[in-house]
Amino acid sequence: MALIVQKYGGTSVANTERIKNVAARVAKYRENGDRVVVVVSAMSGVTDNLIKLSREIMPLPSEREMDMLLATGEQTTIALAAMALHAINVPAVSLTGAQAGIVTDGVHTKAKIMNITPKQVHGLLDGGHVVIVAGFQGQSPEGHITTLGRGGSDLTAIALAAALKADLCQIYTDVDGIYTTDPRVVPNAQKLDEISYDELLELAGAGAKVMQLRSVEFAKKFGVIFEVRSSMNDNPGTIVKEETKSMEDVVIRGVSLDKNQAKLTIVAVPDRPGVASQIFTALAKAAINVDMIVQNVSRTSDTPVTDLSFTVDKADLLKAQKVIEGLKQEVGYRELTANEAIGKLSIVGVGMRSHSGIAAKLFETLAGNGVNIDMISTSEIKVSVVIDIAKGEEAARTVHEAFLE
Amino acid sequence: MALIVQKYGGTSVANTERIKNVAARVAKYRENGDRVVVVVSAMSGVTDNLIKLSREIMPLPSEREMDMLLATGEQTTIALAAMALHAINVPAVSLTGAQAGIVTDGVHTKAKIMNITPKQVHGLLDGGHVVIVAGFQGQSPEGHITTLGRGGSDLTAIALAAALKADLCQIYTDVDGIYTTDPRVVPNAQKLDEISYDELLELAGAGAKVMQLRSVEFAKKFGVIFEVRSSMNDNPGTIVKEETKSMEDVVIRGVSLDKNQAKLTIVAVPDRPGVASQIFTALAKAAINVDMIVQNVSRTSDTPVTDLSFTVDKADLLKAQKVIEGLKQEVGYRELTANEAIGKLSIVGVGMRSHSGIAAKLFETLAGNGVNIDMISTSEIKVSVVIDIAKGEEAARTVHEAFLE
Repeated sequence: MALIVQKYGGTSVANTERIKNVAARVAKYRENGDRVVVVVSAMSGVTDNLIKLSREIMPLPSEREMDMLLATGEQTTIALAAMALHAINVPAVSLTGAQAGIVTDGVHTKAKIMNITPKQVHGLLDGGHVVIVAGFQGQSPEGHITTLGRGGSDLTAIALAAALKADLCQIYTDVDGIYTTDPRVVPNAQKLDEISYDELLELAGAGAKVMQLRSVEFAKKFGVIFEVRSSMNDNPGTIVKEETKSMEDVVIRGVSLDKNQAKLTIVAVPDRPGVASQIFTALAKAAINVDMIVQNVSRTSDTPVTDLSFTVDKADLLKAQKVIEGLKQEVGYRELTANEAIGKLSIVGVGMRSHSGIAAKLFETLAGNGVNIDMISTSEIKVSVVIDIAKGEEAARTVHEAFLE
Repeated sequence: MALIVQKYGGTSVANTERIKNVAARVAKYRENGDRVVVVVSAMSGVTDNLIKLSREIMPLPSEREMDMLLATGEQTTIALAAMALHAINVPAVSLTGAQAGIVTDGVHTKAKIMNITPKQVHGLLDGGHVVIVAGFQGQSPEGHITTLGRGGSDLTAIALAAALKADLCQIYTDVDGIYTTDPRVVPNAQKLDEISYDELLELAGAGAKVMQLRSVEFAKKFGVIFEVRSSMNDNPGTIVKEETKSMEDVVIRGVSLDKNQAKLTIVAVPDRPGVASQIFTALAKAAINVDMIVQNVSRTSDTPVTDLSFTVDKADLLKAQKVIEGLKQEVGYRELTANEAIGKLSIVGVGMRSHSGIAAKLFETLAGNGVNIDMISTSEIKVSVVIDIAKGEEAARTVHEAFLE
């Protein structure tokens, strides 16, 4: 008899038929004697509709009121999910984030969970109920409704699993689990049976849209083992957990291709202390997330200069260009160039630590296929390269074949 | 500088344009130095959609979960209304029923307000904010979300006005106020400047769909003076308040025609003590609301028998017939007849008390127009007659002309 926290995303509860499917699945676990806490997102499309309504009123609404508005999405789903369980004679009670004891800080639209006091959840579980909790939302200590930002429902599930000391946390989604790479790009992509938190973090950071970073970070911090699996079938998914010895036998866990980055190069920047700090402080102040940074060695000349390249989200490109152009006087560089036609290809695996020559094999594979490497960046368990976007998908297939097939 | 509670119904907040209009109106009062608390309903159509979703899952959902579901409707409106005020630079904060301190009993879908502790409302008003409160909803002492049932938003507004000791309570709707009769039936209907609680109660009970009985009862109990007026224009509405001496000068305040009743007659019921009690207890147990009851004098025969007629909502007719047929053995009547083709015409006015001959004048007016009277029932400030539905509207016009033009 296990205590299981199950999280169902927006597509898994997109309509009343799917909500009934969720109820049927929950009932099956319950028949096996498990106790179940269900965390649900808003039905897909609902949040977008609410955002559209708010935009009709003003372009940049108050974040407190956005939270008040968006929290209704999950509240609708919990009530319907409880009804769907009642319809098949399973006792169930719905709770808003606040009712479930999820206390957050007061940073509206991206609140952090401060603590969870799941007294009511425990009481209802002890009374034989399935407990349905609204994901994505909580309450500040002052009693305001807050939301946790993107991927917030995953976070609710993982945090609840930690607070309840659940035996298992299942993240139900519309894919079968975590794959070695994007199956739409590489037909030979394979579903992974398990992956370490760190590997998943690097893959997510490298553009694989499986889960938000902070949910995985939270799970790692509190040691919550979770499974990513599909709500459309009964296939086992991918278990995400702390790294084990055996994981190191696999050199590379996955390949990811991020086509959402753009590259900026500041040509002939004076190579003196403080310049990089000036540039990246200005970008941070403009809330622009910088991913890869590469600085070439200094060119000898009258005053030493260097070229500084970095990547940002495509959506931030224009803003980043403005920021850097605003620094031209102060910094005194020659030219700013931008390139949107890039792809960032990454290979990830904890096995890299104990296997040498991984980067070399990656470069060789790419060279053998005529792919030029534009930028390189490495971490302990990841190697990323920036390449021509036109060659991105073919390169991903080749690299996947070389390392994973 | 007055403290005003304004309530806007579903049609007044039906879309974002109308919500902006509400904001503009609130801003105008604020410019005059008034402090404003706004109570809003769900946008029209929203509640029906939520009910439809729930019906897709099960025909008779749990009432607790219906409350959880339906409460999202008003929560959506309060957030959008607050944004609309921000958009025109008016500081505003939205509060759910629970946040506004509205504590109800635990009777889901038709909860009663137990008390209101508007600490947060006071604090926000003192801080210069417009406070937007979700109508129709509250929280039980155990922390469950509850709803107040039909007309609940009016009740929220009137109860808040009482708790806040507001100077004025305005009920904004899609008509200009309370009329002497239904303007769609009688073109000469006139808007009333004022009306007493009791008159409005009798008119509402007689089928005039202005406000739910219990909101008016609550206002009467706590002496909350309120104004019913239109959100579509700036016309003054109708003030509802305790009866004053001058109100008695007007003999009849209004005429109403209720076409939603059906008549049942139990023919030849034994005229012995306890029979009426048997019948109406059975109907009450089936939750059937009986309106008019008329019993004719006993006919002399071997055992005295009488005919017993009463009216019920058309929607309850079949259920009522079943209940009475189930009593046939026990009670021993001869026959049960039903008639749906009836209308109930009522005239209401506190002036009746001090003017004699009102009922006589009504009967005479009807007779003069060839309208046969089927049943008669009177109260201190009301006379109702049941007539052929086909003659209902013509009769309403004639009676309105005789008493009010």
